[in-house]
Amino acid sequence: MSVMDTTLSPWVILSTEVLGTYPIFELSRSRLRSPGSGREHNFLRLDCPDWVNVIAVTDDGRMVLIEQYRHGTDEMTIEIPGGAVDPGECPADSAARELEEETGYRASELIEIGRVDPNPAFLSNRCWTYLALGCRSDGTVSLDPSEEIEVSLAPIGDFARLIDGGTITHSLVIAAHDHLQRGIRRGAEWAERL
Amino acid sequence: MSVMDTTLSPWVILSTEVLGTYPIFELSRSRLRSPGSGREHNFLRLDCPDWVNVIAVTDDGRMVLIEQYRHGTDEMTIEIPGGAVDPGECPADSAARELEEETGYRASELIEIGRVDPNPAFLSNRCWTYLALGCRSDGTVSLDPSEEIEVSLAPIGDFARLIDGGTITHSLVIAAHDHLQRGIRRGAEWAERL
Repeated sequence: MSVMDTTLSPWVILSTEVLGTYPIFELSRSRLRSPGSGREHNFLRLDCPDWVNVIAVTDDGRMVLIEQYRHGTDEMTIEIPGGAVDPGECPADSAARELEEETGYRASELIEIGRVDPNPAFLSNRCWTYLALGCRSDGTVSLDPSEEIEVSLAPIGDFARLIDGGTITHSLVIAAHDHLQRGIRRGAEWAERL
Repeated sequence: MSVMDTTLSPWVILSTEVLGTYPIFELSRSRLRSPGSGREHNFLRLDCPDWVNVIAVTDDGRMVLIEQYRHGTDEMTIEIPGGAVDPGECPADSAARELEEETGYRASELIEIGRVDPNPAFLSNRCWTYLALGCRSDGTVSLDPSEEIEVSLAPIGDFARLIDGGTITHSLVIAAHDHLQRGIRRGAEWAERL
């Protein structure tokens, strides 16, 4: 589906230099040429694993939230569970794994409700959003050594108000909310089971 | 507004090493200590300028879209206008400037409708979304040397369908759509002028 009859084409990557390899991404700089103008410019890219996040809902209509410290903004945040897709893992399995590791909740059903490019300007990856229905806690979490997380529940009907009120600020969680609301508005099959 | 009675506190930054300074961000690695466990871990951060994006609407109800090549995903994307806040600039001025530079459109009114943290895990910055009303083109764009952009118009009522259909995939544009829809649903003052 295109809204425009474009005359533009993807640029041509002439060369790439890896500037650094880190636990959460690889940083590279490439030389690119515009096929239209012939001009050359340098662009940076962070190659990241794909990510997932999960709107996890219990049978009594509450969503699972996590609070943790985040170093990027040097603040405590309230988010939905999520994380990186491991090598060889499919996104649905990552979603189930991250939900259980971070919160101790398991879903009876996981439904993919949307996908975004976190930032196509300089991030390589995708982020999938899953709706996890019928979630129940088995009480055991399995956190990475650098993770300290507190789990709480809020009515799923409060999701928009938590964004409006500034409690939830993470762009990927807000995109997840948008996937949920667009699905409800267009009458997605899963919407009636919420 | 908090949904949880947390026992967690922000971690303490013990030291920071700048790993690289690039045109669009500075990369650093910090040593942090958890105040709860006393454990220490390394975390990466990209210090970026703040960003803005703009839902720009004409008097006949069409939104301004841009198409361009993006190196992060190595794909052509369709987005709304936006960019970085210059040093000393306020976000509203950045929004007006980016709109005009990238598209040639000027607004009769700019309204802040939301703010997100693009990724609090490792990005330092904020991104503001503005609604630009009464937009008219003066036909002159002023692109950076590395920018090649095509401008088009689509009915504002098609915004959700462009996301559902996979034409718009940028998480920050989808968050902007969510700000717009939440504002309409809660009866924001500006919603009746759309």
